[in-house]
Amino acid sequence: MGILGRYGDFFPLTPRTPRLDLGEGSTPLVPLRALGEELGVDLWGKFEGANPTGSFKDRGMVLAVSKAMEEGARGVICASTGNTSASAAAYAACGGLSCTVLLPSGNVAKGKVAQALIYGATVAAVRGNFDRALELARAMAERRGYRIVNSVNPFRLRGQMSGAFEICDQLGDAPDWLAIPVGNAGNVTAYWAGFVAYMRRRRSSRVPVMMGFQAQGACPMVTGQFTDHPETVATAIRIGRPVNARRARWAVMMSGGAFEAVEDREILRAQMDLARCGLFAEPASCTPLAGLRKLAREGRLPRGIRVVMVLTGNGLKDVETPLRSAGSVVELEDSLETLEGVIP
Amino acid sequence: MGILGRYGDFFPLTPRTPRLDLGEGSTPLVPLRALGEELGVDLWGKFEGANPTGSFKDRGMVLAVSKAMEEGARGVICASTGNTSASAAAYAACGGLSCTVLLPSGNVAKGKVAQALIYGATVAAVRGNFDRALELARAMAERRGYRIVNSVNPFRLRGQMSGAFEICDQLGDAPDWLAIPVGNAGNVTAYWAGFVAYMRRRRSSRVPVMMGFQAQGACPMVTGQFTDHPETVATAIRIGRPVNARRARWAVMMSGGAFEAVEDREILRAQMDLARCGLFAEPASCTPLAGLRKLAREGRLPRGIRVVMVLTGNGLKDVETPLRSAGSVVELEDSLETLEGVIP
Repeated sequence: MGILGRYGDFFPLTPRTPRLDLGEGSTPLVPLRALGEELGVDLWGKFEGANPTGSFKDRGMVLAVSKAMEEGARGVICASTGNTSASAAAYAACGGLSCTVLLPSGNVAKGKVAQALIYGATVAAVRGNFDRALELARAMAERRGYRIVNSVNPFRLRGQMSGAFEICDQLGDAPDWLAIPVGNAGNVTAYWAGFVAYMRRRRSSRVPVMMGFQAQGACPMVTGQFTDHPETVATAIRIGRPVNARRARWAVMMSGGAFEAVEDREILRAQMDLARCGLFAEPASCTPLAGLRKLAREGRLPRGIRVVMVLTGNGLKDVETPLRSAGSVVELEDSLETLEGVIP
Repeated sequence: MGILGRYGDFFPLTPRTPRLDLGEGSTPLVPLRALGEELGVDLWGKFEGANPTGSFKDRGMVLAVSKAMEEGARGVICASTGNTSASAAAYAACGGLSCTVLLPSGNVAKGKVAQALIYGATVAAVRGNFDRALELARAMAERRGYRIVNSVNPFRLRGQMSGAFEICDQLGDAPDWLAIPVGNAGNVTAYWAGFVAYMRRRRSSRVPVMMGFQAQGACPMVTGQFTDHPETVATAIRIGRPVNARRARWAVMMSGGAFEAVEDREILRAQMDLARCGLFAEPASCTPLAGLRKLAREGRLPRGIRVVMVLTGNGLKDVETPLRSAGSVVELEDSLETLEGVIP
């Protein structure tokens, strides 16, 4: 059962809200003992890649599209090149609504929007940058009675709170730290709101310290300076002007946490190391591990605390990048002896 | 929590068995109302693509690798090009064992074994066909004290029984029909054993009719004739000599079910139609929908029954095939008017 069925009392559902359900949520919380020993903490990974479309976006999208249907929208529309477009297309398909995805033209890799196309969305590339695509999406939503499901849609963050609920249910309470990638800064905001809401209803007894991790080339929450040219291998958090910057800063400050930035090569190493524990996550998902290592090196990671890392997306969305640093297929003669020479 | 924690009393666990856990299982069971109406049945999809490595193989592999560790194996080895190799590599990584994957040389697409490489397995291509690779794997297992985790490993099918347990838990009881893809015929055998075991322990009240679906070009269970040149777009079930043929035939017969074959184009259409409901599954996973449609056309699908289809693997493992029949990105001038012309 998806999150509307399991956590419906936390959402603004009415008797007329359709309960869309692709089985989002209920994602694994995996103990990472070897990496935890390295860092001196009790380490867990929340593997959001197990969601229906392979990312945490499904938690918010199921609510956003259900509410769009309740409000009589004819379709949904978003400006996105990545996980948001896949999720919007899938839930629109599930609810029988049309879905339109707008993206900036120029270097449009079909692979980035492959999922949206396969789920049946109309994908259009428009001249101009991302902001122009979003502007057109707003105008078209107005004109056609569509609902915008970009992160400006208030139901997106509401649904994403469910990630925090599940962590409390899986561990019995909130962890000491939550370590999470930060791009648009929506998810860190949603998790904080989720932990607070769960404690207020006495379904947990405390809230965690929120630690937000960004890539060095796209870290406006760390520097305090927005940028127009963010650059990082972690495309899901390649964002220079986070929409939720103010709320996220407030949330992290209240929690006693901080934002930290890590280098791309540390992110890629973390991706490989997580895979070597059996969890294949997209690069953005691996910033928390890279960040915790940095804190441990600098003596800023308290020993023995319980830390949950949110692994936001599935590595299968891009196998090419990690494959470059993985091993190759070894070609062998047909004999046990040549085989013995190469296997561990 | 993974299947060893949730269904441990059904498995041969001892106090010395490590409880490996990547959060396998707990996969969504999704109601498919529109497709169900088309077919005149109460239709559900069990989305096994939400498993940690993206396929149902994780259910058996977690038990096989845990038992290998208990028995003191130094590593695991398998002959495989697909989902099995990904799953073996991930659970070996999780348990800290080495993993070796053997495959027949010649047309070795790196993409097919990308996951295994990323999870850190040693992948070797050996001269000869698949049977020769398996033979070498057995010999090497003997020589090195490795455990074979191909489907000859008895723990694989034991673990896969958990799929049946979950369906009963999710629906409250077994469905009328279980519709499942058949390649090596292991999963259909495991599901049947799972339904029977669950009923014997009174955790369900009945067992389903088992309907096994194959591709026309690789349907030895339908024709009764093994073949050396199976051919189908559904690579995960492109198997001419199913290892579990006899047990599967017996299981399906006992259940009152049957095997049926469907054409590749019907499989691809089913893949697209499932995506248009928000579920992106690999082609093999879509044979049950294609098969149910065939039965409905021929008047052999009882009306109003509850049918669960097992969607065995995640569509993200190969986006190229469905992308060919999906739409394209439309390039637009920057104006609301041109946009209005293309969106639904």
